[in-house]
Amino acid sequence: MTLVSKRVKKTVVILLFVAAGIFVLTGSGSITAQEQAEQPKLSPQTQTCIACHKLYTPGIVEDWLTSRHSKTTPAQAMKKPELERRISAQSVSEELADFAVGCYECHSRNPEKHKDNFVHMGFKINVIVSPNDCSTCHTEEVKQYSDSKKAHAWDNIIVNPVYHTLVTSITGVKKVEGTKITSSDPTEQTLNESCIACHGTEVRVKGTKSIKTAMGEMQVPDLSGWPNQGVGRKNPDGSVGSCTACHPRHSFSIEIARKPYTCGQCHLEPDVPAYNVYKESKHGNIFTSKWHTWNFNNVPWVIGQDFTAPTCATCHNSLIVSPTGKVIAQRSHNFGARLWVRLFGLIYSHPQPKSGNTTIIKNKDGLPLPTAFTGEPASEFLIDKDEQAKRKAIMVGVCNSCHNTDWINNHFAKMDNTIKETNEMTAAATNLMTYAWSKGIEDKTNPFDETIEKMWIKQWLFYSNSIRYASAMTGAPDYAAFKNGWWSLSENLQNMKDHIELKAKMKGIILK
Amino acid sequence: MTLVSKRVKKTVVILLFVAAGIFVLTGSGSITAQEQAEQPKLSPQTQTCIACHKLYTPGIVEDWLTSRHSKTTPAQAMKKPELERRISAQSVSEELADFAVGCYECHSRNPEKHKDNFVHMGFKINVIVSPNDCSTCHTEEVKQYSDSKKAHAWDNIIVNPVYHTLVTSITGVKKVEGTKITSSDPTEQTLNESCIACHGTEVRVKGTKSIKTAMGEMQVPDLSGWPNQGVGRKNPDGSVGSCTACHPRHSFSIEIARKPYTCGQCHLEPDVPAYNVYKESKHGNIFTSKWHTWNFNNVPWVIGQDFTAPTCATCHNSLIVSPTGKVIAQRSHNFGARLWVRLFGLIYSHPQPKSGNTTIIKNKDGLPLPTAFTGEPASEFLIDKDEQAKRKAIMVGVCNSCHNTDWINNHFAKMDNTIKETNEMTAAATNLMTYAWSKGIEDKTNPFDETIEKMWIKQWLFYSNSIRYASAMTGAPDYAAFKNGWWSLSENLQNMKDHIELKAKMKGIILK
Amino acid sequence: MTLVSKRVKKTVVILLFVAAGIFVLTGSGSITAQEQAEQPKLSPQTQTCIACHKLYTPGIVEDWLTSRHSKTTPAQAMKKPELERRISAQSVSEELADFAVGCYECHSRNPEKHKDNFVHMGFKINVIVSPNDCSTCHTEEVKQYSDSKKAHAWDNIIVNPVYHTLVTSITGVKKVEGTKITSSDPTEQTLNESCIACHGTEVRVKGTKSIKTAMGEMQVPDLSGWPNQGVGRKNPDGSVGSCTACHPRHSFSIEIARKPYTCGQCHLEPDVPAYNVYKESKHGNIFTSKWHTWNFNNVPWVIGQDFTAPTCATCHNSLIVSPTGKVIAQRSHNFGARLWVRLFGLIYSHPQPKSGNTTIIKNKDGLPLPTAFTGEPASEFLIDKDEQAKRKAIMVGVCNSCHNTDWINNHFAKMDNTIKETNEMTAAATNLMTYAWSKGIEDKTNPFDETIEKMWIKQWLFYSNSIRYASAMTGAPDYAAFKNGWWSLSENLQNMKDHIELKAKMKGIILK
Repeated sequence: MTLVSKRVKKTVVILLFVAAGIFVLTGSGSITAQEQAEQPKLSPQTQTCIACHKLYTPGIVEDWLTSRHSKTTPAQAMKKPELERRISAQSVSEELADFAVGCYECHSRNPEKHKDNFVHMGFKINVIVSPNDCSTCHTEEVKQYSDSKKAHAWDNIIVNPVYHTLVTSITGVKKVEGTKITSSDPTEQTLNESCIACHGTEVRVKGTKSIKTAMGEMQVPDLSGWPNQGVGRKNPDGSVGSCTACHPRHSFSIEIARKPYTCGQCHLEPDVPAYNVYKESKHGNIFTSKWHTWNFNNVPWVIGQDFTAPTCATCHNSLIVSPTGKVIAQRSHNFGARLWVRLFGLIYSHPQPKSGNTTIIKNKDGLPLPTAFTGEPASEFLIDKDEQAKRKAIMVGVCNSCHNTDWINNHFAKMDNTIKETNEMTAAATNLMTYAWSKGIEDKTNPFDETIEKMWIKQWLFYSNSIRYASAMTGAPDYAAFKNGWWSLSENLQNMKDHIELKAKMKGIILK
Repeated sequence: MTLVSKRVKKTVVILLFVAAGIFVLTGSGSITAQEQAEQPKLSPQTQTCIACHKLYTPGIVEDWLTSRHSKTTPAQAMKKPELERRISAQSVSEELADFAVGCYECHSRNPEKHKDNFVHMGFKINVIVSPNDCSTCHTEEVKQYSDSKKAHAWDNIIVNPVYHTLVTSITGVKKVEGTKITSSDPTEQTLNESCIACHGTEVRVKGTKSIKTAMGEMQVPDLSGWPNQGVGRKNPDGSVGSCTACHPRHSFSIEIARKPYTCGQCHLEPDVPAYNVYKESKHGNIFTSKWHTWNFNNVPWVIGQDFTAPTCATCHNSLIVSPTGKVIAQRSHNFGARLWVRLFGLIYSHPQPKSGNTTIIKNKDGLPLPTAFTGEPASEFLIDKDEQAKRKAIMVGVCNSCHNTDWINNHFAKMDNTIKETNEMTAAATNLMTYAWSKGIEDKTNPFDETIEKMWIKQWLFYSNSIRYASAMTGAPDYAAFKNGWWSLSENLQNMKDHIELKAKMKGIILK
Repeated sequence: MTLVSKRVKKTVVILLFVAAGIFVLTGSGSITAQEQAEQPKLSPQTQTCIACHKLYTPGIVEDWLTSRHSKTTPAQAMKKPELERRISAQSVSEELADFAVGCYECHSRNPEKHKDNFVHMGFKINVIVSPNDCSTCHTEEVKQYSDSKKAHAWDNIIVNPVYHTLVTSITGVKKVEGTKITSSDPTEQTLNESCIACHGTEVRVKGTKSIKTAMGEMQVPDLSGWPNQGVGRKNPDGSVGSCTACHPRHSFSIEIARKPYTCGQCHLEPDVPAYNVYKESKHGNIFTSKWHTWNFNNVPWVIGQDFTAPTCATCHNSLIVSPTGKVIAQRSHNFGARLWVRLFGLIYSHPQPKSGNTTIIKNKDGLPLPTAFTGEPASEFLIDKDEQAKRKAIMVGVCNSCHNTDWINNHFAKMDNTIKETNEMTAAATNLMTYAWSKGIEDKTNPFDETIEKMWIKQWLFYSNSIRYASAMTGAPDYAAFKNGWWSLSENLQNMKDHIELKAKMKGIILK
């Protein structure tokens, strides 16, 4: 226990006293007598936390009581056979090994690194538990994650000047005079609700402030960019990411992470309709109809027995074994590990980038984009054919658990054709855009702020992307056809053409 | 039993005889022997109803058998401890107290008030069971409801001349000659499927009519505006509302009302995407992943034990207690009781109105709108800072069950910023609109029927609103970003600008 | 067992040997000891299939183990009382009667008809199990289905020259030069992901090819249009349809088919938002809130006891009985059997066509469309008033299980009014379109490829249709109002008007 002053010591004694009386009630609603007998010990510090928080934020304490963290210790977790392990550290410190993973165990890690550390009721507490803290036990997962595009999601959108201009054009407050529109820079708060709600904020400690709580006045760190659970959050301990993005709140549930609703917090239409497409696919249909007969908690996850159709996690990152125990795919928290092509067009679909940090890419136009305006990939920064084949083989291995080889081959051949054709439809719109710029109909200085420019963005960001996700999951024909699909690709091209011609006429510009 | 003629008396006797034989079968499929033993008695009248309706509308009888109404009596319900009571009347009449709450108990209330009362198989039956009838037992709930905006939803949209013009412009059938478009007034039937499907119809008794049924020819009241279950329905007994809007059909289920799908019948994109946003929020993710482990029937509803993330009802109206039995929020059927700001812009976001009846509001332009065209709130008709603080404190109390004070403060500061900025984006579009009107590009006589006017409506009704709901629930970044969010706010402004300039050119109007 | 060579015979012996050891493990995860004792015998051929596929495609074997096919034999299935039967054949051949319905039983049917038959590990196997194969046991269902529009869904969209032009205009890749847009014909692969993903592909056997599998090199049929599970798939045995469209994969589940998610694979916004509307309707609300207490497997399906609100299957095709065993509606796999009016406008709503094959229709303009451009139905090809009344009576019978006669009458009167008014709104847009064509503003040669033409398509294909589905289910007021509903119908008409006037001005065309 880290005590910082005499005054505080006294408080703690009182709280422990309170805890003694209260703790026997903990979770009485949901744990059987036998389970209670098997409950691991809580550290004295965590008992103190719970004593108060059971009264002041009871929901979060109860949530934790539903977690595996509250029901096991790192020492027990490390004894499991290799494939059943949910913890990848080979050892943990003695002070952690034999207690349940409680409040204090997580919120007190690495205080020296945490600019958000503060003295709370006599304990040195971090507001934010970061991936670096989680890596105490989940070492491999955090390591894998740190290489992913998700870990770099803040940089990738905010530091990259092209995307930064796009973000700014969309989210800045506009003012109008006559028909003239001017834009200011977006506020951090609005960004935190739109783009970086998913990508993650930069959490900065501005100092300390005093707040009024049910326990009275308290001194707490004054954070900006908080709260936020975006996947690329820049934490005040220098780490990146937010495990709670997918393992929400204090249940740290593998069940929740394996259900598609979790991915569906961010991977949504119109730009990334992965979740929307999944729901309407055959896989999604079987999931929504039969999930109540499945097991979302088993490790490893047994194909056919724990589930009879994949969720997002099955194909993209879970450890999957066959009913006879054969490993079909290894777990990875680098969510690109089974991906060879990037469906998400920037502005064209392209091979996955080598590094999760995409700000380092330079295309032949000198811009930090994975493809040039005319379509050539920035190959130096993208994975090569061998790496593509390696990753595709892992994914095909998952497909092959239920589908035969010819089915799978035909499926991916179809997807390749879709990538080619949607890239062509993006190119068609880009040709119109280039023509409009060249004739002075719109101004390329900011390529994202005028009407025809916004039509062009929709072509690659909404419509081409939607069709590719529908193709990848052989599902959701609406997203391939009438809803942001081929209908929209073709309609939008006609709208662009008409709008170019109308604006040319209005401006007195002669088109050939 | 209310008998009206000798002929009818005879029918009833026969039916009771039938009932004697049939009733033992009731619900055999779903009730255990012990439960059957504990079943409360049914009134003789209700037994008669069931004897026939079990044959003629069996689904609804079975639905009722799943209800608490079929399994308890008002007398038993009133004996429960205060917090566990689901009935707020202090006493009920003797004729009701010791019978299950069956068909006759509800469909025979206050016949003198019911213009829809008719003689049906010898009984004086009301077609519609109204909130006033439900208040026999659920007195407090109906009283609370009567002060809500929901109770006045019909008046608020149909009587208010501004909204009435909007409704009419949208739902009237149009005719075309050349390029001239003319509109007729909407039919009541079309209104009943669009705006007042949710807001509620005015149910009028036009007389009596004869219909052919499986039981032969029957005389029944001839109702207009029926069927409908809108929240502000004007009932033929003079009352307003429809309890079945949220407690559907004959199960009168608290479980259904507490699930978000119920609110999701009406609170939908693009104008009020509360349900859409919830589903994609962190709260929604936890609900969709874990609801099968929760208890939706407990009264009071225990935070953390009955559920680990809120549904709509948790934050907005349910009686919530902590695991130690402390009341966190009192139940209210005035759904604005915990709301201080009205996110729904008319045309700007504003403090909640004092009265559920918003037709009485006058803004500084003399219009029945809560804000002026230039943004000033009609403060006289809106709640003041004290009342706002009082209501916000209740909501914050619910948040505080799981979230700490600083988290909550930052959350609502972010929401306040969003309200300010979306109001500014509404103002920007309003400036463009005013300019277009002033230049004669469109005609303000009806401000809702031309192309640019419809763009302007989308700015405040669809896009500003969507972002505010996403902000309030820290969720659904698509609704804040690309789907009806900031993307749409900015794109729409550019579209308005271009359309104004194109139409000016077409009409030969010179813009400065 | 069909052996084709000595080499193959040897393989089979080895595989049977493998099977002997492996089969006892089958499904150990999900079947109790007693169930295992009651398990029907597997044919020797199916045992052989499973021996390998348990290793190579384990998911699909496990999926089949969850099916009724794996747990019963045709002989047992035929012994059930009439209403409980899930098999409509009066007899099956001896070789099938007493074995579970396994891999070989289905994939070896009618090899002489199957151009996709090939020798696989010594067995003559069909890649595709077609409706004609399923009819071995499910005779009536396949017969009913063959009369439906679904069975003809490929012809209806691909052979019909009008719809073919629409399909081609949408899905063909476009090229751009200046502002000139040219379109090529769509590829089969893109069609297979958009229109005919649902309608079904034509599966052609192009020859034989060699593929690399986990078992080594294999010779397999080279199929085009595969994989696909569209409802009107043209199979290589000459049959049409795909039972797995609704009874997915190897569980052949009645539960899945009865849940709305199955219909929701195709019946989606913006053109056919039946599923979207259902979810937001009162019926949908009750389903999503209470399905976990229902029984989706019972045959017959008991209204009120197995479920308390309908899913798509309840109203459209399931065998429904009352709790007392009275048949409310007979099962039909002709999904139009309870439909009298076709809500889906082509371009106007109209009586259901007499034949599922709609390519034979000729309207008064000489086009293969059920209505003329001016609205007159092609009555000769549509069902008459008597047939309409007959079908409506079946549907009303289902409604009547829960709703009274007057409620139902009012409901359908409202729907009739909606059909009339949405037809009028389609006519208004058609008048604008005709005017634009007559003035040379757009070119009618292809009526589906220019901007104003696309606006006109949205009027009847998206907006009028959405409102009709919302009307039919008294639900989803957003689809009737602001989301693709009356808002869109009225806004789109204004947009068409403005665009016609702007293009006229641009082209120097004088409008009266």
